[in-house]
Amino acid sequence: MELNAIKKLMEKFSKRKEQLYKQKEEGKKVFGMFCAYVPIELILASNAIPVGLCGGKNDTIPIAEEDLPRNLCPLIKSSYGFKKAKSCPYFEAADVIIGETTCDGKKKMFELLGRMVKMHVMFLPCMKTEKAKELWVEEVKKLKELIEKETKNTITEEKLKEAVEKVNKMRKLFYRLYELRANVPTPIRGLDTLKLFQFAYLLDIDDTIEILEELIEELEERVKRGEGYSGKRILITGCPMVAGNSKIVEIIEEVGGVVVGEESCTGTRFFENLVEEPTIEGIAERYLKIPCACMYNNDERIENIKRLVKELKVDGVVYYTLQYCHTFNIEGARVEEELKKEGIPIIRIETDYSESDREQLKTRLEAFIEMI
Amino acid sequence: MELNAIKKLMEKFSKRKEQLYKQKEEGKKVFGMFCAYVPIELILASNAIPVGLCGGKNDTIPIAEEDLPRNLCPLIKSSYGFKKAKSCPYFEAADVIIGETTCDGKKKMFELLGRMVKMHVMFLPCMKTEKAKELWVEEVKKLKELIEKETKNTITEEKLKEAVEKVNKMRKLFYRLYELRANVPTPIRGLDTLKLFQFAYLLDIDDTIEILEELIEELEERVKRGEGYSGKRILITGCPMVAGNSKIVEIIEEVGGVVVGEESCTGTRFFENLVEEPTIEGIAERYLKIPCACMYNNDERIENIKRLVKELKVDGVVYYTLQYCHTFNIEGARVEEELKKEGIPIIRIETDYSESDREQLKTRLEAFIEMI
Repeated sequence: MELNAIKKLMEKFSKRKEQLYKQKEEGKKVFGMFCAYVPIELILASNAIPVGLCGGKNDTIPIAEEDLPRNLCPLIKSSYGFKKAKSCPYFEAADVIIGETTCDGKKKMFELLGRMVKMHVMFLPCMKTEKAKELWVEEVKKLKELIEKETKNTITEEKLKEAVEKVNKMRKLFYRLYELRANVPTPIRGLDTLKLFQFAYLLDIDDTIEILEELIEELEERVKRGEGYSGKRILITGCPMVAGNSKIVEIIEEVGGVVVGEESCTGTRFFENLVEEPTIEGIAERYLKIPCACMYNNDERIENIKRLVKELKVDGVVYYTLQYCHTFNIEGARVEEELKKEGIPIIRIETDYSESDREQLKTRLEAFIEMI
Repeated sequence: MELNAIKKLMEKFSKRKEQLYKQKEEGKKVFGMFCAYVPIELILASNAIPVGLCGGKNDTIPIAEEDLPRNLCPLIKSSYGFKKAKSCPYFEAADVIIGETTCDGKKKMFELLGRMVKMHVMFLPCMKTEKAKELWVEEVKKLKELIEKETKNTITEEKLKEAVEKVNKMRKLFYRLYELRANVPTPIRGLDTLKLFQFAYLLDIDDTIEILEELIEELEERVKRGEGYSGKRILITGCPMVAGNSKIVEIIEEVGGVVVGEESCTGTRFFENLVEEPTIEGIAERYLKIPCACMYNNDERIENIKRLVKELKVDGVVYYTLQYCHTFNIEGARVEEELKKEGIPIIRIETDYSESDREQLKTRLEAFIEMI
């Protein structure tokens, strides 16, 4: 049951490096980023390219551990190692890396990363007081100025409006994808959707939109024909799974589950909420709504998970934490409690990028899926 | 060579619980706190009592691990466990607990703690942009309002001035203590000084000032007589060591070292910088100067360490990290590099509250002290 759109996604991805370097040769600037909090609208409005950075592989962790503690999240170590080893084409293409203060580990890693590459770190507030909102608007403004300086292009109102419309268009397509996944049977596997999210950080946005449009047509056809996957319906929630890291989804779908949603930065946190007004303030407002565990009293996330469980007809929730990620790990206690109150089965998994726990995870997830 | 002032310190500490509950009975409100960032001037100006909270013992960690991840800093787990077990008199006496967003672990732990006790969390910015400074002033103002509401006392200009003068007086005494410790031989052991810092968070400030005054007189006498401790002179830098946690200082002083300074929240970060103006703005300014590793690009700390090494005639630096404390752990890479550039010996230690690594740490610290 291969989808043509997914085939196309893989093709586009295989050619992305070449395409990106060609765009760069043509004079476009490249802005690397780690996180869903970076307002890509501003980058696109300056005719530059936003691109996610590598950070999903175990291979680059040993070189990172020369500088960073071992007991640090694998995503942070892997990213840093990719830059140190110069082995990520997106890192190497980036003119500037845009970081944000989402977590202690990244915040402090950026200090070391800043010695290898030009860094700009946005101060993301972890509370949403009025002053904090003002501060975030200021940070978005500063990013705009940095981008304008770097690209030598002025971000006009017109350009910004176009960029906002384009990114909103992509977001709406992801919303539609989620509506389609709510069908029983669900028309697409979680592993395919995960690739889509992972590559959406890497591909040219026009390509992503094109792929999404084709994908949705195909899935609508499938839904009409009643085709799809009918395992136990799983919602994943927690840390992002960047390209290279698909272990948990692979295991879930090996042992009889099908992932129907991801409350994650490679999932809903990437596309939920549109930018209402094509202004700095409008952009700041949309991004501050992202319910990352870095926020103090992040109740919106818990509400979102409950809503997604209903909308997607979920049988069980897999709470996914990258090892040593304090924010998602601690928030897991509240999420677990709240879901249990409503009788929603949940299993909490903490893992890294190694393969050493694959069998153990398989046993646990198999038992969970049989039980629900 | 016992110091009378240290004897008095221990006596005062042994009676602190009783005294605190008596003060509470007399109608004083008690504000618990975790951190050197909480502006105690505001609490004192309202005729209330600031008190540090327990968090230095291994015993309360298992009960905390029922809710919190195991791979989290022992200070955070221990504190939470103390509240859950109701075994800390200061926690139990506190009418309100004042937290701050210094690190991911505490920030998220506070969400769970808030279900057991009235919490107020201050949003401490991790950058020092103009907007961030405004935000911090606002947070200090909000704390003032909370304290006034809770105590039903108005914090007048006059009251605030008195409180600022008192806390500054205590700080100046600590400065003087540090001057005296710079002598060779140094007139006081690190273990005694550590107790002083630990109990300064717990005692009534008038008692702390009285003890400091007596201590300084005694030490001045010792210096005149050329008495003191003449081991290898060690500066400790890193995470705080709250009451109950003295392992590393004990070991250093067992194996031939003498701790002459602590760049720590149980050390310089507790007392350095006076409040210049007795206003909300003046208080906010002073506290934001604290060079905690939670700050992005915390270069002031590195400069402070270098300065302390010179002023205190330090032979070697022990970089102390509590396990899983990402900020201090990662910042250690930069501190190590900068000190090595200047030929200052440094050893990095990461440990928790257990006794299981004591022998291993002893071996490492003994080798370090022999070598320098």
